[in-house]
Amino acid sequence: MEERAQARQKGLGYRVERTVLDEESLEEVAQRQTHEDKPALAQRLRGKLSCSAVKLRHCLFTCIPVLSWLPCYSFRECALADLFAGISVGIMHLPQGMAYALLSSLPPVFGLYSSFYPVLVYFIFGTSRHISIGTFAVMSMMVSSVTERLAPDSMFLLSPGNLTNATGIDTEARDAMRVQVATATTILAGLFQVALGLVQFGFVVTYLSDPLVRGYTTAAATIAMVSQLKYMLGVHSDRFSGPLSFVYTLIDVCFLLPETNLGTLVVSIVSLVVLAAGKELNTAWSHKLPMPIPIELITIVLATVISGQATLSPSYGVDVVGEIPSGLKPPSLPDCNLFGQVIGDAFAQAIVGYAVCISLGKTFAMKYGYKVDNNQELVALGLSNACGGLFQCFTVSCSMSRSLIQESTGGKTQVAGVISSIIVLVTVLKLGVLFQELPKTVLSAIMFINLKGMFKQYSDIVTLWRTSKIDLLVWVMTLVFTLLLNLDLGLAASIAFAMLTVIFRTQLPRYSVLGQIPGTELYLDVKTFKQAREIPGITIFRSSTTLYFANADLFLEALKKKVGIDIAQLLTYKKKLAAKEKRREKRQERRAKETKKMVDDTLSRDLERVSVGSLGKWSWDIHSIILDLSTVNFTDTMAIKTLRNICHDFREIEVDVYLAGCQPCVVEELERGLFFSKMLTKAHLFASVHDAVLHCGDHRGSPCPPHHCDRDIGCSTKL
Amino acid sequence: MEERAQARQKGLGYRVERTVLDEESLEEVAQRQTHEDKPALAQRLRGKLSCSAVKLRHCLFTCIPVLSWLPCYSFRECALADLFAGISVGIMHLPQGMAYALLSSLPPVFGLYSSFYPVLVYFIFGTSRHISIGTFAVMSMMVSSVTERLAPDSMFLLSPGNLTNATGIDTEARDAMRVQVATATTILAGLFQVALGLVQFGFVVTYLSDPLVRGYTTAAATIAMVSQLKYMLGVHSDRFSGPLSFVYTLIDVCFLLPETNLGTLVVSIVSLVVLAAGKELNTAWSHKLPMPIPIELITIVLATVISGQATLSPSYGVDVVGEIPSGLKPPSLPDCNLFGQVIGDAFAQAIVGYAVCISLGKTFAMKYGYKVDNNQELVALGLSNACGGLFQCFTVSCSMSRSLIQESTGGKTQVAGVISSIIVLVTVLKLGVLFQELPKTVLSAIMFINLKGMFKQYSDIVTLWRTSKIDLLVWVMTLVFTLLLNLDLGLAASIAFAMLTVIFRTQLPRYSVLGQIPGTELYLDVKTFKQAREIPGITIFRSSTTLYFANADLFLEALKKKVGIDIAQLLTYKKKLAAKEKRREKRQERRAKETKKMVDDTLSRDLERVSVGSLGKWSWDIHSIILDLSTVNFTDTMAIKTLRNICHDFREIEVDVYLAGCQPCVVEELERGLFFSKMLTKAHLFASVHDAVLHCGDHRGSPCPPHHCDRDIGCSTKL
Repeated sequence: MEERAQARQKGLGYRVERTVLDEESLEEVAQRQTHEDKPALAQRLRGKLSCSAVKLRHCLFTCIPVLSWLPCYSFRECALADLFAGISVGIMHLPQGMAYALLSSLPPVFGLYSSFYPVLVYFIFGTSRHISIGTFAVMSMMVSSVTERLAPDSMFLLSPGNLTNATGIDTEARDAMRVQVATATTILAGLFQVALGLVQFGFVVTYLSDPLVRGYTTAAATIAMVSQLKYMLGVHSDRFSGPLSFVYTLIDVCFLLPETNLGTLVVSIVSLVVLAAGKELNTAWSHKLPMPIPIELITIVLATVISGQATLSPSYGVDVVGEIPSGLKPPSLPDCNLFGQVIGDAFAQAIVGYAVCISLGKTFAMKYGYKVDNNQELVALGLSNACGGLFQCFTVSCSMSRSLIQESTGGKTQVAGVISSIIVLVTVLKLGVLFQELPKTVLSAIMFINLKGMFKQYSDIVTLWRTSKIDLLVWVMTLVFTLLLNLDLGLAASIAFAMLTVIFRTQLPRYSVLGQIPGTELYLDVKTFKQAREIPGITIFRSSTTLYFANADLFLEALKKKVGIDIAQLLTYKKKLAAKEKRREKRQERRAKETKKMVDDTLSRDLERVSVGSLGKWSWDIHSIILDLSTVNFTDTMAIKTLRNICHDFREIEVDVYLAGCQPCVVEELERGLFFSKMLTKAHLFASVHDAVLHCGDHRGSPCPPHHCDRDIGCSTKL
Repeated sequence: MEERAQARQKGLGYRVERTVLDEESLEEVAQRQTHEDKPALAQRLRGKLSCSAVKLRHCLFTCIPVLSWLPCYSFRECALADLFAGISVGIMHLPQGMAYALLSSLPPVFGLYSSFYPVLVYFIFGTSRHISIGTFAVMSMMVSSVTERLAPDSMFLLSPGNLTNATGIDTEARDAMRVQVATATTILAGLFQVALGLVQFGFVVTYLSDPLVRGYTTAAATIAMVSQLKYMLGVHSDRFSGPLSFVYTLIDVCFLLPETNLGTLVVSIVSLVVLAAGKELNTAWSHKLPMPIPIELITIVLATVISGQATLSPSYGVDVVGEIPSGLKPPSLPDCNLFGQVIGDAFAQAIVGYAVCISLGKTFAMKYGYKVDNNQELVALGLSNACGGLFQCFTVSCSMSRSLIQESTGGKTQVAGVISSIIVLVTVLKLGVLFQELPKTVLSAIMFINLKGMFKQYSDIVTLWRTSKIDLLVWVMTLVFTLLLNLDLGLAASIAFAMLTVIFRTQLPRYSVLGQIPGTELYLDVKTFKQAREIPGITIFRSSTTLYFANADLFLEALKKKVGIDIAQLLTYKKKLAAKEKRREKRQERRAKETKKMVDDTLSRDLERVSVGSLGKWSWDIHSIILDLSTVNFTDTMAIKTLRNICHDFREIEVDVYLAGCQPCVVEELERGLFFSKMLTKAHLFASVHDAVLHCGDHRGSPCPPHHCDRDIGCSTKL
């Protein structure tokens, strides 16, 4: 505001005086270069393929980033911070790993494996310094959707004579099968990621816009919550998979509500309260505590002790985790026959996992000023998954909650990740067995609390309603698609929908007739701006979007409507008149021949003009149309055809059509698309709308743009 | 050129003198209206729902167009022309109907039905006066793909003991089944069309751009030709359906080449030659002949006579049409159980049929100056199909060749269509039986000749190569998809691909740095225009496309690259410096406290500036960045976030960011998206780039845009 007042005081003026420029003159004046000086293909190739020590070194550092940063690791600056962050994150890994394994429908120990191996691989290949690779709620949900589909409980029903447990299911065989399925999916997802990274497809993540990712994760959190309700309530419900499984699960749980196990419910509520209180304390005291209270670890230790002492499992029917095997498993190759059945899921997991990683990675990179390489991240995550899969891990990504802890406790490099994985390793080797009395519902409660942030995203609806209706639509549709079609198909449908919105937006442009703001060279929408005055005899038309096949017809219709001339009807009438004239002429000719008089040759040439002039029945008061094409981003043959037709048809009724404000690349497309001809030269194309208006005014000798002298704003148009 | 020279002589000048306008002043000067005066919703609804005699009449005329034009039918002007055109088209209907029935894998008589009923329905509901509804090659191919899939030969193999014919197939049962399938598909396609028309979905056809339709019809013609090769060669090959069926058929025919029936081949070649010669004659003598020679009719009559006399069928093994039942069949309801299996095909047929009709209809409407109603056409075609389906017709559309004949022989209204259908009716009732000795290969030859126009479309490749590479890509990919995936899936894939090209084009924009053309207010790409001069201290940046989620990141990257400042690194360094300063300050404070001196409060505020000033290690010579957003069509939250980050980050290193040339609708989106804040007001948004440049120059007191006085083009910028 101050600046403006200042400008006005000083009379900061906009004064331009030049000749009117059409495209031809402009290209002459500005010396347009027809061909950019590009090096020859062979030369460019040679430049790319040439090999040098520096290049090789650079290449090596790009592929294995650890080589570039670890040698210059500053122990003085980073070691202590990383150790601290590593311990904090490692402690979070334990409960989260087990909880997310449960969510993946796998035995808890596989969650611990997934918190160990991939972290080490990422340490070597990753470029982000702050993200915490490992189990993640959304990925676990996606893993569960494939394990539940290919190894459902119903496949492992024991024969009635062989009932060894209450549920009547051969859990051992089932879990073994599920691990097979999960590892196959994980390896395939990893291979997809590596392949996409190698062909530089890191850009696919741009299709996952913020509203889409937020809608998707909200839906995933909702699905995860509903799927965990059975553990929280202690009921045995079937698991469903495929489209609509969310709805079926919800209905099933509602029906089973009366069978709630009270003991389990009490444990759930108590753990929820303890966890929520702990998290609140952590937030409130974040600046006072040297590291956050490991409330999750405390909860599971307490719960295990209480469960063991109070014999919750046998006395109250509370489900416990059960045996956790000690030690690591040797690597094993996946069952390649499964690849065909999990290919869709693997691809979806690859994309979603990458999207979460890169968005978090970029956020931290922005904050701390380093670079995260899109494609290298994809390769790194892919290798983490592929190697992890060989060691029975399920698909990993990075978890928001852990990454934030890693950053806020001062983590500076991925050394923190290595330290956290050492903690996990110790647990797997020695301490895991201690947790076998842990009630499963405590793990569900941990997951619930960790999903809190995602549930908060429901408030996006209010924000987006105010800021952008289209983004809100994408958000809501993503949620709906994902809830109804499940995580894989839902993602595909959501991306397709988000892209369709772009097409729709180009099909619903704002078409406007522009008028001059008195005393300026600016032309604005006459409906929005009161002072915008239409130039008599000239219609200036603009579409707010680019012009291409999907909206070329709409453009034409809108132009006709705004101009108010029914060009088709006029042309028919003109044709009829011309035919009539021709017949009259023929009769005259015949008569002339009879009377041996020569008919004047010029007559027929004049006819055209006469017939247009005699279209008196319809009247129109414009002599020129100016199409402001400054908003056109690109065109295609359909658009060029439409423009050519417009120019041609209006010329038939003696209305000139001019184009204005094309970008150079659009001009090139028009040239290549053979838009220009002898009748329609570059002289019909003007540098700006004002140029075109001035040309029309002068050319036609008709009312010029009015000469305003609006002293109030201290400017004038001289013509 | 003349105009230009003239303008120069006259010194047609562009002179503007006004104050610099930022968005705030512009809105004040131009009196932007914040809310358009829209009538209240209730009022609008009332307006829409109110009922009057005029409205009802209009509505009736819109729904049943025949009521509006038939009562004013001018016998004197139109009757003779329509009669003539009707007879010409009717004569074409006969051979085409039978040939296309063969292509649909149905008995020939069903092609005649399809040339009869739908025409009558279209007469009542259609709005185009010149198109000839009826059988069409592409539709027939689509019908055949569903009949061959659901009723393949292999389903009707006779048991070895019951062999009544050479092929060992129960052709009667097979054909009955195929008719069932075809009519069910037709009715469903018709219902789809009616439904789409009623919900005003006529615009879907805009997605079928010219290159797509041409590529698709070329592919369909190719598939049709290959599928007819077996009749031309007289071999018995299997028919394939589903993806890759085209490839299988081609391979199969190649393998069967040695088994060619010589008699059939001779008949094929002779008919092809006769037909081609006839067509050529028609073209050459088009202005001399009152109506085109009915060469197709002549060929089939001759062929039938010769075939009957020379006993081609029994003696030489030439396949003949066989028994053609006389009379019409009573309507029958379709087998609704089939609907589920044909739903995809029906939808594809509905869309393609409509696309062909509307594009031809619009062409004629343009030429003769009447209006074709998108949605009414959809309803009319849908009713034609639905009613036709009840009478055992297969899906119809309009045929290019017949429509052109109807127009060129002088047809003026759909009365011509009724007359043509009377001719078909007479044939069905009385003359059909005469054709039973007609060799099938003659029908194939007729089809071949009629597809000639579509094969010519292969030359599009050359044209499009020169005019638009993207459209060429769409054309080629449509051809490939359709050939490989067949007509239904191929269409879906092609449309998806065409839409993706739009997304890709917005992701591959041309990013440019703009420079001033001396003496003007125009700013052009410095790489393309030699005379464009960058303003010292100011970088003007433009993307050639709109800014939204899929290219917001690319925009940011390109801007950083063009500006040449590694903003992330700078910010980190600045943060480090700031932290250092803070530590120093704390030390000072502590010391100050110790010495009981008060620290000046202003110190800490000055620090920020000091720390930026001391970034001497990196140097940059710009003080302002201007983003030219005149090409932005629409934005979303991602784009706004990116823009906000750009403004914020560059301000941190004391580079001002200004926006210029936003459309009013983009400004509204920025407002709604909470882009503007206290720090980032509308005063940062300028009406044009030149305004922004002038503001920067004045505001910074640094080098202004150079003052050029290029007398050669007679213009000057006064500042």
